[in-house]
Amino acid sequence: MKLATIWVDGEPHAAAVQQQRLVPIGRPGGDLGELVRAGVTVADIAALVAGAKRQMPLDAAQFLAPVLRPGKAICVGLNYADHARESHFEPPAHPTLFLRSTTSLAAHASAVHRPSGDDSLDFEGEMVVVMGSGGRGIAAEAALGHVFGYAVGNDISVREFQFRSPQWTLGKNVDGTGPWGPWVVTADEVPAGGTGLQLQTHLNGELMQSANTRDMLFDVATIIASVSEAMTLEAGDILFTGTPAGVGLGRTPRRYMQPGDVVQVQIERIGVLRNTIAGA
Amino acid sequence: MKLATIWVDGEPHAAAVQQQRLVPIGRPGGDLGELVRAGVTVADIAALVAGAKRQMPLDAAQFLAPVLRPGKAICVGLNYADHARESHFEPPAHPTLFLRSTTSLAAHASAVHRPSGDDSLDFEGEMVVVMGSGGRGIAAEAALGHVFGYAVGNDISVREFQFRSPQWTLGKNVDGTGPWGPWVVTADEVPAGGTGLQLQTHLNGELMQSANTRDMLFDVATIIASVSEAMTLEAGDILFTGTPAGVGLGRTPRRYMQPGDVVQVQIERIGVLRNTIAGA
Repeated sequence: MKLATIWVDGEPHAAAVQQQRLVPIGRPGGDLGELVRAGVTVADIAALVAGAKRQMPLDAAQFLAPVLRPGKAICVGLNYADHARESHFEPPAHPTLFLRSTTSLAAHASAVHRPSGDDSLDFEGEMVVVMGSGGRGIAAEAALGHVFGYAVGNDISVREFQFRSPQWTLGKNVDGTGPWGPWVVTADEVPAGGTGLQLQTHLNGELMQSANTRDMLFDVATIIASVSEAMTLEAGDILFTGTPAGVGLGRTPRRYMQPGDVVQVQIERIGVLRNTIAGA
Repeated sequence: MKLATIWVDGEPHAAAVQQQRLVPIGRPGGDLGELVRAGVTVADIAALVAGAKRQMPLDAAQFLAPVLRPGKAICVGLNYADHARESHFEPPAHPTLFLRSTTSLAAHASAVHRPSGDDSLDFEGEMVVVMGSGGRGIAAEAALGHVFGYAVGNDISVREFQFRSPQWTLGKNVDGTGPWGPWVVTADEVPAGGTGLQLQTHLNGELMQSANTRDMLFDVATIIASVSEAMTLEAGDILFTGTPAGVGLGRTPRRYMQPGDVVQVQIERIGVLRNTIAGA
């Protein structure tokens, strides 16, 4: 099942993708996050879809981020060996974690605004995990049972802000630089842990990143176990699982995104996330 | 005005401190964050207090974190030169920022649980800023007009987690390690920017940190301007403004907190935040 949050009659509304149609489910004003926090199962969603009275064409949909205000958006840095090398970092012994605030998250097809005066806006295509149930001290063996589904994300970074200080926070939290979606694919539809999937990033149609999610240094189960050693994960929390090689920072000459550019991240069996770059 | 969120009849409730009494204001189930986001002024609160029908003794109050789920909790590291030195970091050229998730935040008088097997739980007494109105690109000259008030915080750190990777996230986001409160003092009652106030941290009655908020490397207005260069601040967001020297990590021998310890942070004209340490 593919599940999104879209605009319906001026309000957010959760919706299921059915071929080329979107079927709103749940209450008007409620996002997919509300359903996830309520503990909906794939069977529940199928029943909601079967009972739904409306549908709309997929190609006219306006998407929001699938979970509008996740309790936490946790990101893993340096989670592919080739990207760690190109960034001149050692492959880490533990997951390298940072947080994204809600104001930094955005939707499929949104315009990502480059800050005024900046020329260091960089793409990072990533797989995103949506937690379906929370917990603390989740064992790696049990971790995938806590996953609701998987999405495509772009951990867009303002490198000049990121490296102003050893903590990357500022460069990872610029408004609207964390688009993800357009939908969440439920965990039953992809291989366990979202492993073995091709991930590609294109900038203006040119292939920039190409990797397989099996090459993560820390797989999804390990990330969940590691994070939940310290903190309680909650339903609706999201995890950005890291980017492979090919980012603009790692190229000679560097290749940063410019207003008017179109950046696209696609992951096999999950979907395609496309965004445009705009000025400040 | 001192404003808190307390338990009333099994629900959170905003409340104003009036001498030794607490006066619930706003709706049952609503926290102080709800009032701040609605844009209440000190005059509004005075009117709510004047119209309130209930009050309760301050010494029986059970406090929650004043804003239960801030949109963002942004923390500044290394913001006092003496603490940067004791931590073996250079005083930074830009604010060193990290984020705390909601699950890491906690209330006055809460028990702070040390993770299983850990012996690196450290105190960091800090002043906390509560944003009253948000914005992006806030100029330093205008920044203090966006502040609702000031509180006492303890940015308790699990050093072993913090230094597992160059990003401090894990060690700053252990459940319940960010107590703050017991109340927020509105900005009109302290010097502009909360500057010139004595901050002291005691562990089991022993003085561990003693400094003045005027010694911050980046003052409150500069922090707000710097953060909002990248991201939109929202009403109810909170900022931990950094800790001075004297933390357990900087001592020889190191002095970490143990179950049964009582840690207290006090800031002149703002209040006293006291927490106990518990086992896992």
